Order: sequence, then C-alpha cells, then structure tokens
Amino acid sequence: MFKIRYVAIDTSPENTVFLPRSDDGYGAEQFQALRKVEVAQGGKAILATLAIMDDEHLLRHGEIGLGEQAFRRLGLPEGAEVVVAQARPPASLDAVRRKISGDTLTDTELAEIIADITKYRYSPMEIGAFLVACAAFMTTAETLGLTRAMADVGEKLTWPSPLIVDKHCIGGIPGNRTSMIVVPIVAAHGLIIPKTSSRAITSPSGTADTMEVLANVDISAERMKAIVAQENAVLAWGGRVNLSPADDILISVERPLRIDTFEQMVASILSKKLAAGATHLVIDIPVGPTAKVRSQAEAVRLRKLFEYVATHLGLTVDIVLTDGSQPIGRGIGPVLEARDVMQVLSGDPAAPTDLRERAIFLAGRVLDFDPALPGGQGQQRAAQLLDSGQAYAAMQRLIAAQGKQPASFAPGPLQHEILARQTGTITAIDCHLIARIARLAGAPMQKGAGIDLLRKAGDPVRSGEALYRIHATSETGLGFARELAEESSGYRVSA
Amino acid sequence: MFKIRYVAIDTSPENTVFLPRSDDGYGAEQFQALRKVEVAQGGKAILATLAIMDDEHLLRHGEIGLGEQAFRRLGLPEGAEVVVAQARPPASLDAVRRKISGDTLTDTELAEIIADITKYRYSPMEIGAFLVACAAFMTTAETLGLTRAMADVGEKLTWPSPLIVDKHCIGGIPGNRTSMIVVPIVAAHGLIIPKTSSRAITSPSGTADTMEVLANVDISAERMKAIVAQENAVLAWGGRVNLSPADDILISVERPLRIDTFEQMVASILSKKLAAGATHLVIDIPVGPTAKVRSQAEAVRLRKLFEYVATHLGLTVDIVLTDGSQPIGRGIGPVLEARDVMQVLSGDPAAPTDLRERAIFLAGRVLDFDPALPGGQGQQRAAQLLDSGQAYAAMQRLIAAQGKQPASFAPGPLQHEILARQTGTITAIDCHLIARIARLAGAPMQKGAGIDLLRKAGDPVRSGEALYRIHATSETGLGFARELAEESSGYRVSA
Repeated sequence: MFKIRYVAIDTSPENTVFLPRSDDGYGAEQFQALRKVEVAQGGKAILATLAIMDDEHLLRHGEIGLGEQAFRRLGLPEGAEVVVAQARPPASLDAVRRKISGDTLTDTELAEIIADITKYRYSPMEIGAFLVACAAFMTTAETLGLTRAMADVGEKLTWPSPLIVDKHCIGGIPGNRTSMIVVPIVAAHGLIIPKTSSRAITSPSGTADTMEVLANVDISAERMKAIVAQENAVLAWGGRVNLSPADDILISVERPLRIDTFEQMVASILSKKLAAGATHLVIDIPVGPTAKVRSQAEAVRLRKLFEYVATHLGLTVDIVLTDGSQPIGRGIGPVLEARDVMQVLSGDPAAPTDLRERAIFLAGRVLDFDPALPGGQGQQRAAQLLDSGQAYAAMQRLIAAQGKQPASFAPGPLQHEILARQTGTITAIDCHLIARIARLAGAPMQKGAGIDLLRKAGDPVRSGEALYRIHATSETGLGFARELAEESSGYRVSA
Repeated sequence: MFKIRYVAIDTSPENTVFLPRSDDGYGAEQFQALRKVEVAQGGKAILATLAIMDDEHLLRHGEIGLGEQAFRRLGLPEGAEVVVAQARPPASLDAVRRKISGDTLTDTELAEIIADITKYRYSPMEIGAFLVACAAFMTTAETLGLTRAMADVGEKLTWPSPLIVDKHCIGGIPGNRTSMIVVPIVAAHGLIIPKTSSRAITSPSGTADTMEVLANVDISAERMKAIVAQENAVLAWGGRVNLSPADDILISVERPLRIDTFEQMVASILSKKLAAGATHLVIDIPVGPTAKVRSQAEAVRLRKLFEYVATHLGLTVDIVLTDGSQPIGRGIGPVLEARDVMQVLSGDPAAPTDLRERAIFLAGRVLDFDPALPGGQGQQRAAQLLDSGQAYAAMQRLIAAQGKQPASFAPGPLQHEILARQTGTITAIDCHLIARIARLAGAPMQKGAGIDLLRKAGDPVRSGEALYRIHATSETGLGFARELAEESSGYRVSA
C-alpha cells in the first residue's frame, strides 16, 4: 500500500508515477523492470510508466508520486491509499503481435485494440508498434474496421436534421484556411454545418487556432447545439467534445514517427466526422510536389479508399482533388491567416485571390448536397453569397454567438525578411519547409507568429527583394525560424 | 541559454530533461511539442525527452533540470550553461520509414541506423518502429548487415590464440544453467573459453546473476585477459565491457514489445559473440511447446539463419537442437541454480541428472572443436573431466581468480509450496509461466528468490503433494508469485 502524492511534473501524453528508490524488500528497480505498473484503489485504476526518485525531500518511504497526467486520470485525492501491482499487458496486444507477423485482424480485434488504447492501457511504444504494423500492410476491410472502432469510442454528436454537411481538407498546405469562409457561406445558404476542428499538431495553425483569434472556440456540446440551432453553424475546437479520442492518442504517436499512410488518414478523418454527426462530407485533397499527396495516381487511390470506407459507414462523400503546388493565401499562422480570411469575407480588394477562389469552389461542392438547389449551381450560389456580404454577416453573427475574442492579437512585432538571392521567376514554394519555419517562429501557440508571403509562385522577383516576412513574439522563436530559413528559404527562383 | 541542474529522477533507459513551465516568450509547451530536444555545450550534446516541471522549488526560471541518465551522459557539472534547441531527427530515420513501407535496406543504411541508436539519438518509440518494421520482413542479407553493424560499434575483445571457443543457449528454459558447468570442463581440457554473459532481462536469472552468487563477475577487459591467461576461462558479466551496446538498447525495447523474431535473435547473439572475440561457437536451441522455438521445422529455419550469418562473418558454428519440453535442473533463481551447478560439479549424488547430462552433451560439442581430439570423442572426454573432479577444481580456481563472493546467500526464507490438485502423472511444465512466477518472487535481483522444483515431468504425484516451493525475501515478492501460481501452477497432471 502506498499513499498518493502529487508531483508537479507534466509528462504529456504519458502517465508517469514515481517511486522512491529503496534498498530493502521489493525495490523500485524491480518494479521498474516491469516497466508498466498498475495503480489502483477499488474500481479506479491507471497504467503508468515508472520513474525512480532519489530525492527524499520529494517523496518519502511509503509514498508514490503521481505526475500531472496520472494524478488527473486516477482522480483520487493526495494521501489516498493505493495498491501498486505489475501491469498485466492488455490482452489485445496479442492481436498486435499477430498483425506484426503479417496477420489481418478482425473487426472485433481492432475494436479491442482501440478500446485498450483509449483507456491508456498501451504505452506510446506499443501504440507505435501497432501503427507501424498497420503501416506495413492493411486491407481495406481492416481500414473500415479501424474507422468504425475509432468512431464508436468517445462522444457522438447528434443533430435534429437528416442533412448535416461538413468539409474537410487533408492538410499539408500552409495558409489554406478555407473552412472559415466555406462555413459562413453554407450557413448563409441555410444548410447545417456544425464544424469541429483540431488545433495544429505539427502544422503552423489549425482551423481552431485561427478561429480563436476572432472568437471563443472552447464550446460544450450543449452550447454547440444552441448556436447551430440559431446560426446553422459553429466553428469550434473538437478537442472539447471528446470525439474519437482514440484518434488523438494515435496522432500523438504518428506525428513523431511521421507515419502518414492513407489508411491511417482515412480512419482518422472519417472517425472524427462520423462522431461529429456529419451525413454529407466534401473532402479536399491537395496534390502537389511538397503536399501530402504528390501524384494524381496516389490521389485516386486515396479517393477510392475514402469512398469505400465512407460508403460502408453510411456517409455520403464528395472527394475533390485540388492544386496543392504552393501555399494558399498570404498569411501563415493564426493572426495572419485570420487577416486573410476576413479580407476575403469582407470583399477587401487586397484579399488573396487564390484563397477566395478555393473557398468558393469548395463551398459550391458543399452546396451541391442541397437537394433544393438545381444541379451544378453550387459555385455560382457560393460566389453570390460571398459577394453580397451575406457570408460576412453570417460570420459576424457566428463570432457573436460563440463569444467575441476579448483579447486583441496583432502580427508578431519581431520581424525578419527573407530575400531572394537571384533575379528571375519564382517557380516553386516548398509547403513542408514553409510550414516548419512558421512553426519554429512560434505558431500556433504564439498567435501572432508566422510567415507573411510577399510573393507567390509565378511572380517575378529581383535579387535582394523580400520573398516573405517572418513574424515572431519571442527572440528564441525568431532565431529558430530565421536559422532554418537562411539555410533554405523554401523558394526556388529560376532565371 | 539555460543553467544545468541535476534532478534526482531515474527514467532509465531514456534521457529526460525538465523545463519550468513559463507563460511568456517561447514556452516549455512549445519545446514539448518538438518532443525531443538537444541539450548542448561546445562539442557535447545529448538528445532527451522533455517533461514540464510546475514546481518552482525544484527548478527556477532559466534553469534546465537533467534526470540521472541525461546528467550522466552529458557529463557537465551543475550550473554549466547549455543551449537547448529542437532536435533534428537523425537522418537514418528516413531509412526506417522506407523499411516501414517495405523497402530492404543496404549495409550502409543499417550501419547508420545502429550508429544513431547507439548514440541515443532514437527515442524508444523510434527504436520500436525500426524493430517492428524489421519483424514484418527482413531478408537474410539484412540480418547479416544488421549483425555486422551491431558487432562493429562498441568494444571488441581480442585474444592471443586462433581458437577461441564459446557456448550459448538461446534461452527460455528455466534452470538451464549449463554454461557454469561447460566452461570449467572446457577450461580443464585446455581450450580457451572467455565467456561473457548477460544478466537476466526478463528471465529469473542470467548466467552472470547465478555466477555472482559464487564470485565477482564485474571484471574489466584487462583483468579478464589476465584471468584467461591463467585459467583458460572467465565467467564474467558482459555488460561491464560494452560489447555490442546497440544490442542492449534494442533488447530494452524488444522485451516490453515481446518482439522475438529469429532475425533479431541471430543478430543479437552473433554480434555479442563476435565482439567478444569468439571463433568457434556451439549454439543450443531448446525445442518444446513452451520454449522459444516450438517445432522442429522452426528450429531448422533458425539453425540455417545462424549458419548463414555466422559463416559470412567468419565464425564457425555448431548448432544443436535439444529437448526444451520442461525446465532443466531443480532450482530457478540465482542461489538455487548455483546450488544445482555445484552439486553437478562436485559429483554430489543429489545433483539433478538432466542438468549434468545436458552439460556433458554441450561441453562435448565444444571439445569437438579441438583439432587434437579424435572425432566424436568430445562427450566422453567431457564426462571424464567432470567425473574425475578436474572440472570442479577448474571452477574453484576460476572463482578464486575472479574473486570469491564475500557475501553468503541462502534460499529466500519466505516460502510457499504449490500443491497438486489431483493424483496422476505430471505430463507438462510450462517454462514460460514458471519463469514468470520465479521472476515475480524477486529473482534475479533478490539472489535467494526463485522456485525449487520438487517434481518434474514424468513423475507421479498425489493430490495435495507439493509440486514446487516458491522462495522469496520480501512479502511483496512472495505475494505476487503466489497469486500467479495459485491462479495457474504451470504444471499439468493427468490421471
């Protein structure tokens, strides 16, 4: 029996517990050899990684320290008595091992794996093993089983309408913030589009990060229903409502391992959308040399996989392939992207044309789900709603309904311009590298950090003229971003 | 710039650094999003996982805390100023990603991966990804490349003789402590057998753990040479001399993931033996329903893989398949195994026959490497050296040369007998389960903990009679072992 003590150490995403090293009896090293321990009282139990603490001021004999994640997830007060035991490995790990050896898994096995992962019974290493085994080979039936299993754990949103539309981009293109234009257009038309978005994980901004520059995005499921009833739409952070929590855990391991197979992408996106209650979904797949999908052939394979899984889950999808050869718009990072979005919505002549056109195209495809609209008129209707200011008005009502952001953000005051080193025409911009530079500058956590693109592919440039401007709010961020950008700007200029 | 502060937390095997959470500038969360950071000063640098510390008493603003592993590996004093930067992922991870997608890797790529792993540039999750990708598919050429790469990093022992023999068992059979009998037999004959062994990782005892009951096993390379020059042999802990350090790191990830492919086993064993300077090696593959190798067909595949890789690395091997249907000897755990070994060597009539016979068989195969011995006479010679007491004398000289263990160990005083629940004949003993019970009792860290088998397969037993006795030195250990043994004894008794 050990007494709980809170230890103010954050080892996100893992549970960590701390035991004092002891030189008698069953020592801490022995527990550590078990690597994972179970800490339990009555019906409450967590699995955790063990660290050994040698500082007697922090932990006394007979105490067990719980790091922030472990303390929160166990949910017992300090001083509570718990039992520490070897963690029996979850039974579903046997299925993972068979998958590693090349077996295909049944729906039941996949559901058990996902259930155990969601209960934090897998270590990140074990999750990594599952993902790598899936990355090596996964059938379409397995992808379907995985998607369904992921959608089935966690919360599900339901809406009082048979037609719930949504729009999702697979990502990878910096500045491509079309959702914040598509949603008000669709809402102004009268379709219901309750859009939940993620915060950025490895990109410089997610829709939730950018929307937060303008409005509150941390909205409960109940409050979301009220807003949607009034405005036909919401632009909220999905993390608040615990949709497909397995997806968040898998992503936390996929990203550092840079596992980005189509199967994982399909399961991730469709499980989230199913849980969010969508019935009709437009999926945007940008194709380009530095995008996530690099050839038309790959894009077609991905499109078919989306269609197969969606159809079997009762979801109507329209998959569109778009130009992913360079960033969209000018701003990259929350504040700079929000500026672009509001320029497009307000009809500002300075608005970036490519962002406007992409948003109209995608909104048109969503509107084409409306049975009341004559076939093929979606785009025309979208442009009309944007040009008439109706979409802008819808966005302003939405901001007011969600709660206007009380803080006022500006582009980061620390700036550095990256200059062309030769005269000629810009022939390519590396999406991946530009995203990484913006991220190092501090985006999305520093809202004002990011990149403002001053020139795009196709533009002429003279040696010494600025290609883009890095914005940051800390010298560390500016230094990191500048170092990488000076090493490689991400722009190709040909004479 | 941060100032180093030592934090008394052991997160073996990982490097962990701690940053205070800060609400201004480039925050700790932002570093954490990078997941791995590089801590550097001048030419010294380590990669580490980041945890965030919220306790201001432990870490002040401007300080970075280094856990035990990180502090030791960086090797700078407290207060030294270091730079913290995002860790660029090691370049060899690209090869790992290609391996995940199904590529085969070249010798150069495998060497780069192993070099980066040995420099602690991979996280356990990344090592797991590499291992799982290899477990899915690995060519014999890749296995060879991996073995060579692993043998080439770390120290290599060299010996002033062209014939250096060794003996290795792939493990999995509790109590199978033949090395401690084979080595003195071979040394008494006059061949050179410098045996380095591991401590147990998931088994209840390694040869080093059991030998340590009798003698010092923590011996430098220089001292080993002196002992071998005098005694023809040594029975030392290999960890001291840093042979194939990549193997130790890979094993620390393979074990919790229970990855045990033949390819990894071959690379692990042969890289260690090559680094230890062996030229002629007997490998014992026990085959049985609860052993590591479960069928004759599997054993033959493993034998051929050993032969292929060994031959290409210039190592002469003799692979023998043995009966792995139940534990060997009676004692399981360091003290109990050392008792069995000394009974066999001293010709005690109570000595377990199966251990004696297995040791004579294996020693005979090793002696058959001696060109001076007529073909096929190895076993006869081994039995003679054992029965005449020459092997026992060699063992006593070896103990004296290595340094007699000053402490005196006894079987754990806390005992519990597991009883038969029906009358009949014992038809099977589960090696895996028995090992796990002995381990839970506290072996190998508590030398006296383990299991004493009172009956073996083939023996008759009456309901209520004892099958085996659990020994422990702590109530916790006895409790854990007893709980599992009462749930499932590991014995099958048929009427």
